[in-house]
Amino acid sequence: MICLSLNQVTLNRLSLPAAVDLCRSAGVPAIGVWREKVAEVGLSEATRILEASGLIVSSVCRGGQFHEPDAVAENRRAIDEAAALGARVLVLVCGGLPPGSRDLGAARARVGAGIEELVPYAVDKGVRLGVEPLHPMYCADRSVVSTLSQALDLVEPFPSEHVGVVVDTYHVWWDPMLDESLERARGRIAAFHIDDWIVPLPAGALLGRGLPGEGSIDLAGIAAKVFSAGYDGPVEVEVMNERVWDADPIATIEAMLRGSEPVLARADPVVV
Amino acid sequence: MICLSLNQVTLNRLSLPAAVDLCRSAGVPAIGVWREKVAEVGLSEATRILEASGLIVSSVCRGGQFHEPDAVAENRRAIDEAAALGARVLVLVCGGLPPGSRDLGAARARVGAGIEELVPYAVDKGVRLGVEPLHPMYCADRSVVSTLSQALDLVEPFPSEHVGVVVDTYHVWWDPMLDESLERARGRIAAFHIDDWIVPLPAGALLGRGLPGEGSIDLAGIAAKVFSAGYDGPVEVEVMNERVWDADPIATIEAMLRGSEPVLARADPVVV
Repeated sequence: MICLSLNQVTLNRLSLPAAVDLCRSAGVPAIGVWREKVAEVGLSEATRILEASGLIVSSVCRGGQFHEPDAVAENRRAIDEAAALGARVLVLVCGGLPPGSRDLGAARARVGAGIEELVPYAVDKGVRLGVEPLHPMYCADRSVVSTLSQALDLVEPFPSEHVGVVVDTYHVWWDPMLDESLERARGRIAAFHIDDWIVPLPAGALLGRGLPGEGSIDLAGIAAKVFSAGYDGPVEVEVMNERVWDADPIATIEAMLRGSEPVLARADPVVV
Repeated sequence: MICLSLNQVTLNRLSLPAAVDLCRSAGVPAIGVWREKVAEVGLSEATRILEASGLIVSSVCRGGQFHEPDAVAENRRAIDEAAALGARVLVLVCGGLPPGSRDLGAARARVGAGIEELVPYAVDKGVRLGVEPLHPMYCADRSVVSTLSQALDLVEPFPSEHVGVVVDTYHVWWDPMLDESLERARGRIAAFHIDDWIVPLPAGALLGRGLPGEGSIDLAGIAAKVFSAGYDGPVEVEVMNERVWDADPIATIEAMLRGSEPVLARADPVVV
């Protein structure tokens, strides 16, 4: 079902229970949860709260980080949590260069090997993995997977029901190959995140995302192509921004509802 | 001739005459000049100083900015200046989205039309144009040309002696298609800029470049592929960084000489 989802990082100051309550009162039918927020209340309590809420768990953020020495064990824990929470996908943010390294090829190969190692465990637990390309400005320190095409190369060796890609407008909007890659992603899109590009970037470049409609991205245009490629799941609003975090959460939810209207309007009525 | 060049923005606090003097005393045989610095002394005086110096003028920065209403007239002035200065190339930074626009396709089409309009004038003046893809983090506000492949698509309709591409390590290092694009760029590389990627990015993301060797980019590895694609011109160090600007210029030149050694070492001796 194509519907709106709150990725809870958008309201990063709220606990999981508070974010769940706000989704319910605002009529947002789905939520993307972060493992740190789940840990705050404990996995079993988080599971109980989410089940009782009736919300769709559109994603768990996040696994990946294949440059870390303990990546395998940590990713297995993330898969266990995603399984317990009944999430549609575990988002993989694949990690940057190891400290001091300039070997991008080796780092990218390590991501491929890491995914391959995880897949059997994810299949066993019934969790779908979603490889998220991150904007190239995060290549050194957050993800050596920088384009949707590259993410598709990584996931295509595996069955699409077990391994897909995550399309986030902030990360992919600039890509001259985006249209071709979205066509190629048919059946592979495990999650769709919307957020907007605003300038200037803040120091660190991490917390500069805009709410849908605030920036330069043709969100509705990209959404039309995502839906046209067969994606019919939740549309998650994922905004990391101190200004948004400092704002009244109810005002943020309202802005998010308004800003995502033109995006959801692009869903093919036949699909919905 | 493969040799080191100082892009004068690396010593942005110096005037053109001071930068020229420093190149000569440090044994740097080439300089990339900025139009603002040329304007400070006047074009004819700049031309006289550069001719007297014996330095190669590896580039003029810059033309482009096709989103500006007066782009054609301004680019013609830039071509005139590059011709007067005897520069190897006029670097084109193609401009971002017009204010308020989200139409990336239209902005990219405008760049193509803008280049097409400029070429006859550049041919007439004997100036080679160099289209520089900028890092995707500048897509909204500085350049909708974000990859080398895209730049090659733009220049390939024109003769390579008149229109080429500018490869800058800071802008292209992350690109999973870089190797293929560099092979495709054979005969088209009009300039090669080196600088390094360091994190975290500063606010605005513009002045965070590192001197060669300070960051995450495999400069020598990329240089080997650039030389292997037939490029045999100056290697310009172009670093925009407040910290570097605040440092002693002689120390910066020395760091630049040290940091570029492994890059210049990758020049095929047969080519040199």
